[in-house]
Amino acid sequence: MMKKIAVLTSGGDAPGMNAAVRAVVRKAAYHGIEVVGVKYGYEGLTNGQFEELDLGSVGSLIQRGGTFLNSARFPEFKEDAVQQKALDNLQAAGIEGLVVIGGDGSYRGAMTLVAKGFPVVGIPGTIDNDVPGTEYTIGFDTALNTVVEAIDKIRDTATSHENSFVVEVMGRDAGDLALWAGLAAGAETVLIPEEAYDLDDIVERLERGAARGKKHSIIIVAEGVMPGHKIAELLEAKTGKKTRVSVLGHMQRGGSPTARDRVLASQFGAYAVELLMEGKAGRAVGVRNHQVIDYDMPEAFQKNHEADMSLYTLMKELSI
Amino acid sequence: MMKKIAVLTSGGDAPGMNAAVRAVVRKAAYHGIEVVGVKYGYEGLTNGQFEELDLGSVGSLIQRGGTFLNSARFPEFKEDAVQQKALDNLQAAGIEGLVVIGGDGSYRGAMTLVAKGFPVVGIPGTIDNDVPGTEYTIGFDTALNTVVEAIDKIRDTATSHENSFVVEVMGRDAGDLALWAGLAAGAETVLIPEEAYDLDDIVERLERGAARGKKHSIIIVAEGVMPGHKIAELLEAKTGKKTRVSVLGHMQRGGSPTARDRVLASQFGAYAVELLMEGKAGRAVGVRNHQVIDYDMPEAFQKNHEADMSLYTLMKELSI
Amino acid sequence: MMKKIAVLTSGGDAPGMNAAVRAVVRKAAYHGIEVVGVKYGYEGLTNGQFEELDLGSVGSLIQRGGTFLNSARFPEFKEDAVQQKALDNLQAAGIEGLVVIGGDGSYRGAMTLVAKGFPVVGIPGTIDNDVPGTEYTIGFDTALNTVVEAIDKIRDTATSHENSFVVEVMGRDAGDLALWAGLAAGAETVLIPEEAYDLDDIVERLERGAARGKKHSIIIVAEGVMPGHKIAELLEAKTGKKTRVSVLGHMQRGGSPTARDRVLASQFGAYAVELLMEGKAGRAVGVRNHQVIDYDMPEAFQKNHEADMSLYTLMKELSI
Amino acid sequence: MMKKIAVLTSGGDAPGMNAAVRAVVRKAAYHGIEVVGVKYGYEGLTNGQFEELDLGSVGSLIQRGGTFLNSARFPEFKEDAVQQKALDNLQAAGIEGLVVIGGDGSYRGAMTLVAKGFPVVGIPGTIDNDVPGTEYTIGFDTALNTVVEAIDKIRDTATSHENSFVVEVMGRDAGDLALWAGLAAGAETVLIPEEAYDLDDIVERLERGAARGKKHSIIIVAEGVMPGHKIAELLEAKTGKKTRVSVLGHMQRGGSPTARDRVLASQFGAYAVELLMEGKAGRAVGVRNHQVIDYDMPEAFQKNHEADMSLYTLMKELSI
Repeated sequence: MMKKIAVLTSGGDAPGMNAAVRAVVRKAAYHGIEVVGVKYGYEGLTNGQFEELDLGSVGSLIQRGGTFLNSARFPEFKEDAVQQKALDNLQAAGIEGLVVIGGDGSYRGAMTLVAKGFPVVGIPGTIDNDVPGTEYTIGFDTALNTVVEAIDKIRDTATSHENSFVVEVMGRDAGDLALWAGLAAGAETVLIPEEAYDLDDIVERLERGAARGKKHSIIIVAEGVMPGHKIAELLEAKTGKKTRVSVLGHMQRGGSPTARDRVLASQFGAYAVELLMEGKAGRAVGVRNHQVIDYDMPEAFQKNHEADMSLYTLMKELSI
Repeated sequence: MMKKIAVLTSGGDAPGMNAAVRAVVRKAAYHGIEVVGVKYGYEGLTNGQFEELDLGSVGSLIQRGGTFLNSARFPEFKEDAVQQKALDNLQAAGIEGLVVIGGDGSYRGAMTLVAKGFPVVGIPGTIDNDVPGTEYTIGFDTALNTVVEAIDKIRDTATSHENSFVVEVMGRDAGDLALWAGLAAGAETVLIPEEAYDLDDIVERLERGAARGKKHSIIIVAEGVMPGHKIAELLEAKTGKKTRVSVLGHMQRGGSPTARDRVLASQFGAYAVELLMEGKAGRAVGVRNHQVIDYDMPEAFQKNHEADMSLYTLMKELSI
Repeated sequence: MMKKIAVLTSGGDAPGMNAAVRAVVRKAAYHGIEVVGVKYGYEGLTNGQFEELDLGSVGSLIQRGGTFLNSARFPEFKEDAVQQKALDNLQAAGIEGLVVIGGDGSYRGAMTLVAKGFPVVGIPGTIDNDVPGTEYTIGFDTALNTVVEAIDKIRDTATSHENSFVVEVMGRDAGDLALWAGLAAGAETVLIPEEAYDLDDIVERLERGAARGKKHSIIIVAEGVMPGHKIAELLEAKTGKKTRVSVLGHMQRGGSPTARDRVLASQFGAYAVELLMEGKAGRAVGVRNHQVIDYDMPEAFQKNHEADMSLYTLMKELSI
Repeated sequence: MMKKIAVLTSGGDAPGMNAAVRAVVRKAAYHGIEVVGVKYGYEGLTNGQFEELDLGSVGSLIQRGGTFLNSARFPEFKEDAVQQKALDNLQAAGIEGLVVIGGDGSYRGAMTLVAKGFPVVGIPGTIDNDVPGTEYTIGFDTALNTVVEAIDKIRDTATSHENSFVVEVMGRDAGDLALWAGLAAGAETVLIPEEAYDLDDIVERLERGAARGKKHSIIIVAEGVMPGHKIAELLEAKTGKKTRVSVLGHMQRGGSPTARDRVLASQFGAYAVELLMEGKAGRAVGVRNHQVIDYDMPEAFQKNHEADMSLYTLMKELSI
């Protein structure tokens, strides 16, 4: 029976990471397992920045954005000697398993430890929703609501002045955030990396709307397509109409997690502990068909994430 | 090919109903079908309170709480003569299909029209998430977040004063809202209709927490179990400790819908139109395994809604 | 020159209390003065529950609701021996001045220490806005916005179903919260302790509105007038119309403070330190005519708080 | 006795404009005066885009962002012939007075009508809080809270990754939004147009904080000082540390108004009607020393707006 495990957060922070750490700590406590928090992701793992986490450490944490364990970029973890040092730290501390919360990049680091025989389980935590193998990642629902609330505000101005706005949203190479936000905010057009865009078609749709009496418009562009100001320039060149730009930026990453993200994080955290208790290693937690499941971690970086393109079709039909 | 359909909202209002009506109107417009809005649910259907809905009618509606078509209780719709009058109104207006948005009670009314040969499709819209056959109803996600935000606020006071609070939440005979909120708000205990509660066990858990240094607690009770003040009295009698009560009440029904509810409402609205176009009648729209599906409407009132009891187990383990 | 001061929060918690403590600590640090936090208000003062507060202790605290120093009821502080014990604790710890954050009740406790020669300065912190001598107290603006957001949600339902709602809000003997909320939420009627109500007049106004086509209504009642369900019964008896009740309850006390409350708390905290540095004692901080000012603490419990009755007149005219 | 007045919104939209129009309509109705809404500001005044506003027109409007009367830029209003056309429209419609809601630019247009003998009263509506003669403008409190909530979110990420962030906020030539937000969000530094900045001093403060263990920082820059990316570049050049930039953009203008903005808007709207009823012309409404007052409109563009520099000093002391 396992006695002590560790948990770290890695990559870009996401709302719900704290809720996941809390669930790891509480689920472990329920089974009499000690938990060590690793600060600053793989960097802290390598430097031995460990702290004991008990039930008190995670009080009032479920509603907090960001990650209290901190996160850091640490490309040095690609080196074998660095990985070995991390492993030595884990073993010296009597740690028998590790939970890694982050994106697919964080899973790569995890697999190097697994390859050296150390059990690691991954939890998908990123607002981009771009981890292959799971329908949702922790943080996506919160970021989505943040984006939609921001666009609701921008629409107040767009409607008052009858302006066109381009809103650039995050998502790296994935269009999920843009796509869901477009549908939820009732945007006129969404540009996502998964689908080639046709400038003439966009312009025609805007003009059709205008002819029908619609005098403002919101065009959402995923950062993976092109910068917001760029598409605004292209549209202005075609339409001759001033197009404003709003880049939502880093506020998309923060904030108190939504109920959905807190529940998902709790499910994932508890399930990751179960997997470690069962002796599983190199597994990633996810949700498919409304069920919490696990799968081989490498799937997450060998496959590509697939957006739900039925939403794209729906969005096009509803923004008639 | 269908030329004109109608849409109504019935039963308790839920955030996202407007987004669903908007999707019905826009999807229909996309296919060249006219839409008539029926005011005041079945009452308006019987009285012929119809209004034309075009793309302009549903502008800036996706983010609005409540239902702009209004809703009403109308027990008279059980009578055959009343149903016949409604049917006459529909036919006189050249309406060939009807979309009903509401809970399972609303589906009963719909089935009487189906029995008379009129095509009706149902969309589950209620914050209670208690419509059998679908994992989620429109409005649940918004109400859940409203509840969780309220409990986050109550916890500020509970923590400051080290008090115990009972929070009563809605849900009629279903515990979903209480259960999800309990997990998401990190409540100490949740009482739901689906699971018998043991007062001694609750008290023991609270005392175990207190012994460990936890000086405040939040107990969530679904309205279907008993009123909040009642459970507070029972707890006070056992613990001798003052227990405060908060009944969240009707604010749980309102507010701008979350992104998730807007997307779900859009999917349901568009899908309902497709079903009518395909000549389907007496079908209810739902979501299962992450897919929008349809099923025979009577399932929704012949079966019982099942809460996801894995969340109950998880909640118990995490509130250790 | 003062070297060490203490700060405590007392009475009901209010959003912004943490921001005020933060300002005390930072302003003191700016002048090289040490700060001790007293836990649990006067109870902790009596029991010597002190903790050093430095710049790090108050990091990320400005946005937090509640009070991290905790608060407690402690009627025993009326006894001279208890006061003397508190005084001994303060002197034993080398503390030369005290900042008390709370309502007028908290000021009474403070004055007993002042009477014994110990310098105390008071900061008004309560959501009720009922401290005489200051136009605003810390927490009022946040609670007001919480109430208004809740009523906005209730109005969604009231509009959809064309119902009448009574909403009971906090405020003890003061009507400020009810009055401001009534104006801001566009309520039909507000009942406050400062103004006798006339049931017939209320009913007549509601009926006049109904005759004009207004089919829903929101009546706000301050808890100091009567319980919400009581006025609902009175109205139902007169109108024969079902009137729903919502008691907003303890969620009104919590939540992240608004910008306004954070700024006010920062001004008050810093100014309190200045007063102690100048050797002032028995002074209360406040805001009048848009200026931060100070006045003799007893004014706060010898006079009565006055609501801005011009808002009442305005509310009546606008809810025509 | 006046029988009919008009109201328009002009310049950038601000949350609370709708609440002000609602107050104009309701106060006028209370006195039996008809109200005409002018669409698109001065452009609609010139083109005669008028619509009758009654109590029903302004229902459920108090909580709505933007301006339902729309706003527009219309430099042509500088021409005498254009002004005359507007005047003719007003007189042809039997309108005897006009309420203009906007910034000081909107007051200039108003004064040209006053010079021609037509009574106009101005209400300050802009998020920038930059109208001389009044302590607050409608929309400022809402925008301030929007900014602070966004920075709270950005701080989650800044804290998790220990990053430095520059946040650019609106305000044209006024620093109020940046200054208040800096104080309320606990920013490390604020740059406003009213005060020369010293790059070396900023860097020294950041380094002093870092030496003390503070590893993240938020620098707020008012758009009137320089673009966010520019100050980030200057800081990076000095510190050698990556500095991220977030330009909050147009979302600052939208959203449901705060309670404070709704109350202020209601007071201003009602008072403007009173002024017209008393035969006043060329007066601007404002708030000074906690009192609603009026003053000669030209003051608003002949004087400069003054920020409350005591907040700047306070901010510097508290961000030690």
